[in-house]
Amino acid sequence: MSGTEKQRPIVATSIGDPAGIGPEIVAKAWVTGEAHKLSRPVLIGSAHAMRKGVEIAKVKATVRVVNGLDGLSDNPEVIDILDDGALDPADFQIGQDSEAGGRANAAWLKRAEQMARNGEVAATVFAPVSSGSLKMAKALDVIMPVVPGESYLLLLSGPLRVMHLTDHMPLRKVCDTISEDLTYSALQTLHDTFTRWGMANPRIGVAGLNPHAMGKEDIESLAPGVKRAQAKGIRVEGPLSPDAVFRQCVESKYDAVLAMYHDQGHIAIKTWGFSGNCAVIVGPPYLSMTVAHGTAFDIAGKGIADHKMILNAMRMAGSMSSGSGFIEEMK
Amino acid sequence: MSGTEKQRPIVATSIGDPAGIGPEIVAKAWVTGEAHKLSRPVLIGSAHAMRKGVEIAKVKATVRVVNGLDGLSDNPEVIDILDDGALDPADFQIGQDSEAGGRANAAWLKRAEQMARNGEVAATVFAPVSSGSLKMAKALDVIMPVVPGESYLLLLSGPLRVMHLTDHMPLRKVCDTISEDLTYSALQTLHDTFTRWGMANPRIGVAGLNPHAMGKEDIESLAPGVKRAQAKGIRVEGPLSPDAVFRQCVESKYDAVLAMYHDQGHIAIKTWGFSGNCAVIVGPPYLSMTVAHGTAFDIAGKGIADHKMILNAMRMAGSMSSGSGFIEEMK
Repeated sequence: MSGTEKQRPIVATSIGDPAGIGPEIVAKAWVTGEAHKLSRPVLIGSAHAMRKGVEIAKVKATVRVVNGLDGLSDNPEVIDILDDGALDPADFQIGQDSEAGGRANAAWLKRAEQMARNGEVAATVFAPVSSGSLKMAKALDVIMPVVPGESYLLLLSGPLRVMHLTDHMPLRKVCDTISEDLTYSALQTLHDTFTRWGMANPRIGVAGLNPHAMGKEDIESLAPGVKRAQAKGIRVEGPLSPDAVFRQCVESKYDAVLAMYHDQGHIAIKTWGFSGNCAVIVGPPYLSMTVAHGTAFDIAGKGIADHKMILNAMRMAGSMSSGSGFIEEMK
Repeated sequence: MSGTEKQRPIVATSIGDPAGIGPEIVAKAWVTGEAHKLSRPVLIGSAHAMRKGVEIAKVKATVRVVNGLDGLSDNPEVIDILDDGALDPADFQIGQDSEAGGRANAAWLKRAEQMARNGEVAATVFAPVSSGSLKMAKALDVIMPVVPGESYLLLLSGPLRVMHLTDHMPLRKVCDTISEDLTYSALQTLHDTFTRWGMANPRIGVAGLNPHAMGKEDIESLAPGVKRAQAKGIRVEGPLSPDAVFRQCVESKYDAVLAMYHDQGHIAIKTWGFSGNCAVIVGPPYLSMTVAHGTAFDIAGKGIADHKMILNAMRMAGSMSSGSGFIEEMK
């Protein structure tokens, strides 16, 4: 690393449920060295589980327990991990939910969030956790809830970047929740966040709520919210026909879409294509990223799980948290 | 045509707004001879406009006015057209809405519908009409309205076949409209129609209304509707997570999806990809098909418009109306 090079941000990746594909894909991703080009990576989890992951992945690397963030190896062959002993190796089996796995993950997620909140790390990445394990550990609440007006789920899949105004909410309630204020505030957050990540002045398309964006809510809530944002200099258009705006984003007419509800954005992202998907919670001052796939218990331990998504998440987190913008996904 | 060959169905294609790309793409599609392999095609429209279309498309074919359906040319070089004189050639200009174009199209669509209803033709295909022209002619009502419980919009794009339980309806009203009866009746219609078209016993996935299909309407209306259909032997699953079922259809886990509302299906179809899209009204006993694109006034008359969609619609209409099932789209 030359002296003039901008300091790469520290990105902490939690290894996910020890019984799932998390450790093995994190091992595969680490040894490519690609995450190191954009960040100084460190893991949070169990060194034992990671050694097992290295073995399963059949990669060449040693796992080293570190006690803090000084003197990170910054080396694709030395995997640094913060291990607080939350997981007893005897307490889990590959491919199965476990209370121990849930409890350990709850501790790792909390630690990651704390480090991000304190500014010790620039971003966090979460390998897949198991909601089954978290449930057994009565720790489902560590999964960050999304609160309209405060935080939003952003899905990233290549050129398609979709932030959701509401998340897990019945459609009826969505209709009652949408307002001019919420629209405006979400647009401001989206604009500010993208700018901080290194994409200044993003072009935003707002999806309407109703067919062809011609319903009551489109006219009375969305349109004035968009107008207010435009008056503040935000580059935004809408409300636009929901069946057109996602394709227009794929075709780079927009840098991001503000979707009104969970399925509007998720249908677009998931139907268009799955590879490279990651999810970010927008709202908190720090960057928190997860991958779209799960623990894949059915193939865990076989060494065949694909590491591209977690690698792209680790790379993306490095680039975005240092204000260097979005990057192309590695295929 | 050999004596043992099954009689190919007569498919009537209306040429669309004379000022749009309709005539030129229909000309290009006709001369490929591909529609003839699956149907005996005939056009409905203005012979003058079609001669202009042939000229613009720079294809080798003569346009011949026929008075009925006996003795159709069945020849890619002889374009048969039913011309009732509804359009005065002096009354329209390429690229512009016109009252004359609207009035003529209204007459052509009515004639096509009548012939289909009488069983004179097995199916109709509509090249793009202009809602501007129809409006000027006060004839917007010829566009068949979709009435939940009676008729449904089906979009086709390769493996993705999506029938919509409701169409242009505000989301709030969608929530109030969905019922067990409507779900059951739509599933029965979808099953019967696909079977008639040559895909017996299709595998249907029902999209839920709410995120992860876990809301009130999913449990109280959709689930019992699906159960009733299953009891009748219909191969149907659901309600399924709306953000997963369309991708599962793309990946051929289902032959069709029943979508709850306009954007649910349209976002999936349009974001996934546009080529080859056509739309069918399901419900009437005859087959009525349109293409997903419009009149494209901006490029009309230049001979550059792509004819693949209308050709695929003509081929598909031939295959489906004769009970030979869905066919692969030509690229």
